[in-house]
Amino acid sequence: MSRTVTVKPFDYVIFGATGDLTMRKLLPGFYYRMLAGQVPEEARIIGTARSPLTRDAYQGRALEALKKFIKKEDFDDAKIQRFLKLVHYVSLDGSKPESDWNSLRALIPQDKADRVRVFYFATAPNLYGAIAKNLHDKKLAVGDARVVLEKPIGIDLASANDINDSVGQYFKEENIFRIDHYLGKETVQGVIALRFSNPMFEAVWSSDYIESVQITAAETVGVEGRAAYYDESGALRDMIQNHLLQVLALIGMEKPASMAADDVRDAKVAVLQGLKPFDSRTVASHAVRGQYVAGKMGSENVPGYLEELGKESQTETYVALCAEIDSPRWKNVPFFIRTAKRLEQKVSEVVITFKPTESRLFPTEAKRNVLAIRVQPDEGISWTFNAKNPVHNDFSLGQATMRVDFAQTFQTRYPDAYERLMLDAVRGDPILFIRRDEVEAAWTWLAPLMKAWADKATPMAHYKAGSWGPDEARDMLKRHHAQWHEDMSL
Amino acid sequence: MSRTVTVKPFDYVIFGATGDLTMRKLLPGFYYRMLAGQVPEEARIIGTARSPLTRDAYQGRALEALKKFIKKEDFDDAKIQRFLKLVHYVSLDGSKPESDWNSLRALIPQDKADRVRVFYFATAPNLYGAIAKNLHDKKLAVGDARVVLEKPIGIDLASANDINDSVGQYFKEENIFRIDHYLGKETVQGVIALRFSNPMFEAVWSSDYIESVQITAAETVGVEGRAAYYDESGALRDMIQNHLLQVLALIGMEKPASMAADDVRDAKVAVLQGLKPFDSRTVASHAVRGQYVAGKMGSENVPGYLEELGKESQTETYVALCAEIDSPRWKNVPFFIRTAKRLEQKVSEVVITFKPTESRLFPTEAKRNVLAIRVQPDEGISWTFNAKNPVHNDFSLGQATMRVDFAQTFQTRYPDAYERLMLDAVRGDPILFIRRDEVEAAWTWLAPLMKAWADKATPMAHYKAGSWGPDEARDMLKRHHAQWHEDMSL
Repeated sequence: MSRTVTVKPFDYVIFGATGDLTMRKLLPGFYYRMLAGQVPEEARIIGTARSPLTRDAYQGRALEALKKFIKKEDFDDAKIQRFLKLVHYVSLDGSKPESDWNSLRALIPQDKADRVRVFYFATAPNLYGAIAKNLHDKKLAVGDARVVLEKPIGIDLASANDINDSVGQYFKEENIFRIDHYLGKETVQGVIALRFSNPMFEAVWSSDYIESVQITAAETVGVEGRAAYYDESGALRDMIQNHLLQVLALIGMEKPASMAADDVRDAKVAVLQGLKPFDSRTVASHAVRGQYVAGKMGSENVPGYLEELGKESQTETYVALCAEIDSPRWKNVPFFIRTAKRLEQKVSEVVITFKPTESRLFPTEAKRNVLAIRVQPDEGISWTFNAKNPVHNDFSLGQATMRVDFAQTFQTRYPDAYERLMLDAVRGDPILFIRRDEVEAAWTWLAPLMKAWADKATPMAHYKAGSWGPDEARDMLKRHHAQWHEDMSL
Repeated sequence: MSRTVTVKPFDYVIFGATGDLTMRKLLPGFYYRMLAGQVPEEARIIGTARSPLTRDAYQGRALEALKKFIKKEDFDDAKIQRFLKLVHYVSLDGSKPESDWNSLRALIPQDKADRVRVFYFATAPNLYGAIAKNLHDKKLAVGDARVVLEKPIGIDLASANDINDSVGQYFKEENIFRIDHYLGKETVQGVIALRFSNPMFEAVWSSDYIESVQITAAETVGVEGRAAYYDESGALRDMIQNHLLQVLALIGMEKPASMAADDVRDAKVAVLQGLKPFDSRTVASHAVRGQYVAGKMGSENVPGYLEELGKESQTETYVALCAEIDSPRWKNVPFFIRTAKRLEQKVSEVVITFKPTESRLFPTEAKRNVLAIRVQPDEGISWTFNAKNPVHNDFSLGQATMRVDFAQTFQTRYPDAYERLMLDAVRGDPILFIRRDEVEAAWTWLAPLMKAWADKATPMAHYKAGSWGPDEARDMLKRHHAQWHEDMSL
């Protein structure tokens, strides 16, 4: 029996409603949540953007998006019609006070306290402050109206503070929902359940047993059409600062006092604030940046990053870091983090390698225990351990792997990360959103590294498209007597 | 690559060579070991029994046995012929000094020190002493000649001592190989590897984490044609005293100093000697004996034990015990042991239930972690733990199970338990054989219980054939806030 948490009627206003994110994630996400019984009939999904569209025309675009991004078997004409009735549109430039705010005000009565009001900012982040101000000035930010902020929250600490300050002028921190869609992923949330509901995991979750942690988000795609946009950010800002540091925080955090949002976020921010700062030595020894050069994805020849971009660039498409958390639990345990475009395989996972046993009982050496948490695809867990190898007639060891596939176990569709997050904002539950101090701690930690890279203090490594990354990243792990996990069959 | 341990040329003399065990297990076992390259061409397998058979006739019987008990795909005419050349026969009553010992002596030269000599006693145990004496008197027990003793080693401590004393007069303890074919099972041996080569298991292998241990050997067969024979022993003597207490010892033992046979057996015997003795209260509260009554195996109606036997009987076909090991590691951890005929499913396994987590973080209760070691069929391990249930939109927990199938992992045929043991006797490695003090400790522990049952101090429970046993056994676990594992799908 599904215990879906019902939500009250809501008005959900999306700024940037003609954009890619809205079409690919938000509208399909609302449709799926409607199927799950979580979108009441009285709900309104109000798209806003500068394009002068009629409601009909926008519903037409929404229909196209659903056709494209919803699975065929979930597409039902009657339900689609029901869904489209929820969809409204207002042509509005949210950053401009002189724009047509009256039409939006007409659509959402200002004083109905029984309706939840969410403003989703899916525009360029430099507009967040202006939109927030307008919402306030136009008296739309009433009661506990919430704003959801899409990434990136800035490109460094200063710009993040600018955004947070300007939005914070008009919305209280508790009503600001900074989205990190990694936290919407079931297996990422699952880390908390795994760690704190299983004595067998709790028993070994420290430097007493754990030798190293690897966090990987590998993509096979290149930058393709988005080269110019991507070149402004790079892998460090795009993936590490938010997604992978959030995963690191969940793996590394102490047990929260409760599952109240701020208890969990207190525990996470303590990890981020406890990351050992980079210095002039470790920016070189504990970080590798790289760019892909031409190579092969499967049998297809693909160009290198600079060829796609068409100019010189110091933007990295590969990052590997070695982080350390300054806490008794994690004394001397390296956290290896990597992300890149154009790697051999698409996979997000956490791989925990345990210290070897001290037993020297057996004729062959015991290998290290490895726990792999697969975030995607094929959400699940595997555990590689030593077992007696029956091929031999002595007590020789072999490695065996236990596995579980969660989708199979729970016989359920895994919701897209956005679905849960969009509705959590309606419910007013910020547990899976990023608190301001987390954003700040992440940027603060990365600042010396970003400076070193901007100053070209460390070289750019190169790797072939379709490989597992540059040799320099392999060498970094070798210095820690470790190696990257590259056998990705769960 | 298989690292099969080669063995020297040997003479393997089987007493009881026309019996069921020889035909079903020993001859097929030697054939498979020959295929694995472990039976040299110069080896001799010499059957002896009272039947006046020629070698040809015995080879004919051996051929019939191989046809019956070897898998079709392993039956190869040329190899069968090669095997039969190893097979000899001497008509001999091993318990009689006046029997034809000369023929046996002629077959195995007495002074060839380069050949290993093994005498396998597959006769009635009351003959072991006489055979041993004759081997000695006829000067066949030369050098480090070994004897392998089949179970049962007695029916109680006194009779076991008789057998051990009488064989011990002529063979040194280190050359006496008491077989317990459970120790030949890969997954039973695997317990040692599992426990002492994996820090994650070592970390939780104590009463700090473990709540209870269940050891099950469930059979679906009844006693059928063997009723009269079975009625002399019963489940306690047939299964508990040897097989299941050995499994308990492997689960419970401290880390041995080395994998030398006596270090491992020292560790095991410490467990058996540390079993909390039964007293007049616990023979009733910590033990259940039962007999099956008529019932259904699948869709087939089957008779009860007494109907098969055709008379009254106080012999148990079901035993469930609650044992406790008096050691710091196992303080207050019950070891539930059960075995029976005519249960719903054939399975041998160890199920370890962990204490619940103290976390109260989640909206639903965390279930207990469970580690199941499957001895047979489908050798493998499974681990049931708590995971975030993706069906819900909160942090509700569900149970997930990781599994591994060893035969699949190691891509190998699982040898029959006897194969390894037969050859270990040739190699002179007693690690998987039972030392005299282990036999004594087991009988000593069971003595008060056997006495109470003989005195009818506790009642006989009954269970339907095809069920999971009597209610009394269920109640016993309830008193420990536990329940029998009955979902046997690995």
